[in-house]
Amino acid sequence: MSRWAYVNGAYVPLSRAAVSIQDRGFQFADSIYEVWAVRAGRLFDVEGHLARLQRSLGELQMRAPMGEAALMMVVREIVRRNRVHDGIVYLQISRGAAPRDHGFPPAGTPPTIVLTAKNLDRAAIAKRFETGIKVITLPEARWARCDIKSTNLLANVLARQAARDAGAFEAWFVDGEGNITEGSSSNAWIVDAEGRLRTAGLSNQILHGVTRAALLNIARDLQMPVLEQPFSVDEAKAAREAFISAASNPAMPVIAIDGAAIGDGRPGPIARRLREHYLGAGLEP
Amino acid sequence: MSRWAYVNGAYVPLSRAAVSIQDRGFQFADSIYEVWAVRAGRLFDVEGHLARLQRSLGELQMRAPMGEAALMMVVREIVRRNRVHDGIVYLQISRGAAPRDHGFPPAGTPPTIVLTAKNLDRAAIAKRFETGIKVITLPEARWARCDIKSTNLLANVLARQAARDAGAFEAWFVDGEGNITEGSSSNAWIVDAEGRLRTAGLSNQILHGVTRAALLNIARDLQMPVLEQPFSVDEAKAAREAFISAASNPAMPVIAIDGAAIGDGRPGPIARRLREHYLGAGLEP
Repeated sequence: MSRWAYVNGAYVPLSRAAVSIQDRGFQFADSIYEVWAVRAGRLFDVEGHLARLQRSLGELQMRAPMGEAALMMVVREIVRRNRVHDGIVYLQISRGAAPRDHGFPPAGTPPTIVLTAKNLDRAAIAKRFETGIKVITLPEARWARCDIKSTNLLANVLARQAARDAGAFEAWFVDGEGNITEGSSSNAWIVDAEGRLRTAGLSNQILHGVTRAALLNIARDLQMPVLEQPFSVDEAKAAREAFISAASNPAMPVIAIDGAAIGDGRPGPIARRLREHYLGAGLEP
Repeated sequence: MSRWAYVNGAYVPLSRAAVSIQDRGFQFADSIYEVWAVRAGRLFDVEGHLARLQRSLGELQMRAPMGEAALMMVVREIVRRNRVHDGIVYLQISRGAAPRDHGFPPAGTPPTIVLTAKNLDRAAIAKRFETGIKVITLPEARWARCDIKSTNLLANVLARQAARDAGAFEAWFVDGEGNITEGSSSNAWIVDAEGRLRTAGLSNQILHGVTRAALLNIARDLQMPVLEQPFSVDEAKAAREAFISAASNPAMPVIAIDGAAIGDGRPGPIARRLREHYLGAGLEP
């Protein structure tokens, strides 16, 4: 549980951390976020998350609430205050609070910035990695700009709950051509029947995952055959391995899709190898 | 400007009205809303908005924070406290505040309820009705459940701002088949080249507008030819009239689409007739 939050310039107890009911994040989902993983008190992929943050702000023509150096000071302070050793930092920036109107608020409206941090149960994640997870597939129902890490997440919420209701951990969206785009909060991967590592290429349909990019780099360093190309549900079910990636779940093995076992129904060696290399790299010095 | 808000059981000054940074409305757009029009201190279409509210809650498996009778007491009190004569009441209900997790929070998590109310500038709206508005068209970019009146509105925000940047009032979304679904915060209508009143039929692609339903009833009472069928951009540009409908903009004439004049480029008689009948009906006794 996170105990301190940072809200618009002040560190406040999480229980009292609040935003205006006129905040555009609350009224319009007009906000973006980032999640950094923390391991052994150190941040993962600092630059990758900062670059994506700038991209999200730029795509939405949203003003940054502070410079990157100041932001990283706050990130480190929120980690320190919450005594996070292994966990995550959550950052959210909205277009600010203003009288309700769909169009952008008056120039000069200060953006809202919120940070929290908490420890995660690493033992539970490690155990999940050993057993693997189940996913279900659902028709793509999200908006057209899933490349922006926004809080326009209601379709993701419903998909994740549908997965939970089905006894699964994650839901994969299937687009109009029958291809899997990604999960409700993770990118989707397979090792296909030909042994190639596959994940959808970058487009407006998927989040440009920082962990996804790191895993691709590792795979190329390891000279694995890699294909940034979407795959169908049938290809996924016929895959040797499947897994998901997210800051808090790097290369988490998928052992079943819609109830069909993947490979021998156990976590596969490629996901394990990628995860081990990932956890050994990416940490800030 | 609204001066009082109702938040989770208390009337508070709007300037201090706040929700938790962990509110699911803020973090996930996991919330719904309603807007009632108020004219001469009386509410429009009370039952229609209550029915849609129940539908939105039901579709999202969200718990109602209170019964309808209690809710209407709050609605009337927020109108009274804000001295609203001609204006709107805004209601938002989220799935509540909980540690961040895409799936639904634990059962028993209380929903968040927020109400505000404010007067609108009726003279400005009347003037807008006399001059008409311009719209632009944009590719449909919203999620798959626009029938739910949710705050998953980031695509709507960007579309409305694009309209403003183009000197227009509203943006109409065009689906993959070239048909106009609706506007960023209003339903879309034309009087087609054959003189038929047309608006898209109910589906998951459009909001089930309360004002839309009221206007359809009026048109049928007036024995106008009505077709609940989507229309293309070309059909709209060739229309005799075009207009939008929303609680705060009933039958607002559209005089240009993407810069092309509609009809003679002035507000048309059908929109005027529908608006006059609408304003004479629908008020609570």
